[in-house]
Amino acid sequence: MDEQIEFISRGIEEIISAGELNAKLRENRPLVVKVGFDPTAPDLHLGHTVVLQKMRHFQQLGHSVTFLIGDFTAMIGDPSGKSETRKPLTREEVMRNAETYKEQVFKILDPEKTNVGFNSHWLSTLGSTGMLKLAAQFTVARMLERDDFEKRYRENRPIGIHEFMYPLMQGYDSVALKADVEMGGTDQKFNLLVGRELQRSYGQKPQVVITVPILEGLNGQQKMSKTLGNYIGITEPAPDMFGKLMSVTDDLMFRYYLLLSDLTLTEIENLKRSVADGTVHPMDAKKNLASELVTRYHGAVAAKESREGFERIFSRKENPEDMVEYASCENQTVLDIILALNLAPSRNEARRTAEQGGVYINSEKITDLSIIPSSAEYVIRVGKRKFAKIKALPAGESN
Amino acid sequence: MDEQIEFISRGIEEIISAGELNAKLRENRPLVVKVGFDPTAPDLHLGHTVVLQKMRHFQQLGHSVTFLIGDFTAMIGDPSGKSETRKPLTREEVMRNAETYKEQVFKILDPEKTNVGFNSHWLSTLGSTGMLKLAAQFTVARMLERDDFEKRYRENRPIGIHEFMYPLMQGYDSVALKADVEMGGTDQKFNLLVGRELQRSYGQKPQVVITVPILEGLNGQQKMSKTLGNYIGITEPAPDMFGKLMSVTDDLMFRYYLLLSDLTLTEIENLKRSVADGTVHPMDAKKNLASELVTRYHGAVAAKESREGFERIFSRKENPEDMVEYASCENQTVLDIILALNLAPSRNEARRTAEQGGVYINSEKITDLSIIPSSAEYVIRVGKRKFAKIKALPAGESN
Repeated sequence: MDEQIEFISRGIEEIISAGELNAKLRENRPLVVKVGFDPTAPDLHLGHTVVLQKMRHFQQLGHSVTFLIGDFTAMIGDPSGKSETRKPLTREEVMRNAETYKEQVFKILDPEKTNVGFNSHWLSTLGSTGMLKLAAQFTVARMLERDDFEKRYRENRPIGIHEFMYPLMQGYDSVALKADVEMGGTDQKFNLLVGRELQRSYGQKPQVVITVPILEGLNGQQKMSKTLGNYIGITEPAPDMFGKLMSVTDDLMFRYYLLLSDLTLTEIENLKRSVADGTVHPMDAKKNLASELVTRYHGAVAAKESREGFERIFSRKENPEDMVEYASCENQTVLDIILALNLAPSRNEARRTAEQGGVYINSEKITDLSIIPSSAEYVIRVGKRKFAKIKALPAGESN
Repeated sequence: MDEQIEFISRGIEEIISAGELNAKLRENRPLVVKVGFDPTAPDLHLGHTVVLQKMRHFQQLGHSVTFLIGDFTAMIGDPSGKSETRKPLTREEVMRNAETYKEQVFKILDPEKTNVGFNSHWLSTLGSTGMLKLAAQFTVARMLERDDFEKRYRENRPIGIHEFMYPLMQGYDSVALKADVEMGGTDQKFNLLVGRELQRSYGQKPQVVITVPILEGLNGQQKMSKTLGNYIGITEPAPDMFGKLMSVTDDLMFRYYLLLSDLTLTEIENLKRSVADGTVHPMDAKKNLASELVTRYHGAVAAKESREGFERIFSRKENPEDMVEYASCENQTVLDIILALNLAPSRNEARRTAEQGGVYINSEKITDLSIIPSSAEYVIRVGKRKFAKIKALPAGESN
């Protein structure tokens, strides 16, 4: 029992409440574990996989996991008509997105133990009466306590009344599924608690709410998000995934170990100690993390190849055929270096390539060519094939 | 055209807007005039008839009037389960109440030109999606501007989210009916305007909103209401109705003339002048008002008999058989007088009769027997048959 709790608790943010989870686990039956997903964005990145990993943990303990697709509101779109980005999806689009989802999530979840659900099944049959009863379960004041509502209300930005229905409908999903546990990111806590409360109103035992941390993106600052561009998509090519993982800081590497890898907490602690006392090089620890994750999404062969490719370029200094070496002067920008080495035919062409995402410093895409990298040694890549290894000369020396 | 506008404007509070009403009337077609009624309270009193009179005016001008019964929410009751008084009604109860309504309102409205509608027809088929779309048409902030919501929110008293749906559903009724005009009491103004706005959202021409004043109850202060006990039910026996109308002040009499009678504005002005210059006694003006209204609800014969009965007791001083006369001392309460005249066997019995509504000063029910009436001359009635005519002695004289 304690082992189960410990396993579930790994890397999560909060359990409400641990006592209730304990009691449910003691009932010795497969618990119904619910996690909701938005069918409008079927491209998953590693940020989404934090909760998927946690779902897998429940599966490993023998519980029943529901991957719930929130298709009901997606098929309505934004009924206020104000958001272009929330156009209604057709049933066909929802089903197509669901298939895309499945392909991705079954790289983590066990298909045999995963129940894929659609909330339109019960929400569309609630009807006018059911919706009104649902609305009656919560007060305006309590809904306005939700951080984002509170902020918008305070700032006189409009909140449509239908927006108050979304947390209630999401909560009703828990009633319909008779969920024992619901999980989500910490930003979902309010909604998860609504589900807990609605179950009480509808005469059910309240679900245990488990929040997982929001994964930081590659920059280590903001959350991983497609919009911010700091993400690793789980369908990205193996070498890109490997390279991006290699670009994170050591701190972020351990965060990713905690939230994404299958290493036990003890193994992670040991690794941290070894890195700290110098017995393991952080670069090797990072390569192991990248290998584990690339293996998960692309298999062991692709992971091995990605690792070797990376090492060829960056670690063993076996340069690709067209790799040149260059000692940069102080104050030379990336653009200066590209032009000096003839990696692009013109200033404009270099900028265009950068705009289209074809310029990398090590494995990180850059669009601003006016920067002066701070590393003492790095690789510039322009397009697919043009590489140059740059060593920054200390001030005073010249090329 | 101007005559139509003037006729409609008689005794109303506000038209939004007169220009739009004018334009609609110029279209020279029967306008759809909507008024909503709550099917949980089918006992109408004169307060309800203010708007019914106005509906009749529209009928007299050839327009189509919908007496809309809000059965949808009545069949749900209070979905929060918090209000005992809003228990759900069955369809049978709603239909029975509707019949009771019809019996009453057709004393005012022309049955041939009245369309009795039920909003469950369209609200119950809106479904989850329709409800959500409806909710999207309005913002939380604007709904919180409604006086009572604003007040409750400010005072931290709970507002169920379903309560935000009621004005929207009521507004949707206007969409479903394609209403040209909606009328209601001034306390309904916010809701009527929601209907106007929703019609715009659903691509219709907005309805004209007409508010009518809330009729003051017999005491002339608060609104006429069953709860406050200051009402005249339109099914009350003719003599009671007559007597209650005779008990109002002269000011209130003219208000009732304006809002309830069929006299033209000119006739009312003339009457006011005659009362002011002494050519008509206010008591006679009041008797004429009472006769007109009793005739409307009980017919001319009953009105004549009520008037004669009233005059026998109060005006011509032809007392009923058991009427005694009594000169009260200063500071003698009603209870003192009742006991002095043996109108009740005991103090407790007198109080009990009063609690059950059996004690009257003139024709006004009183429950507090500790008062000392201020009139110089009045009649106390205890139960059905015990009357006493009281003359208050000036201070210093004794019985």
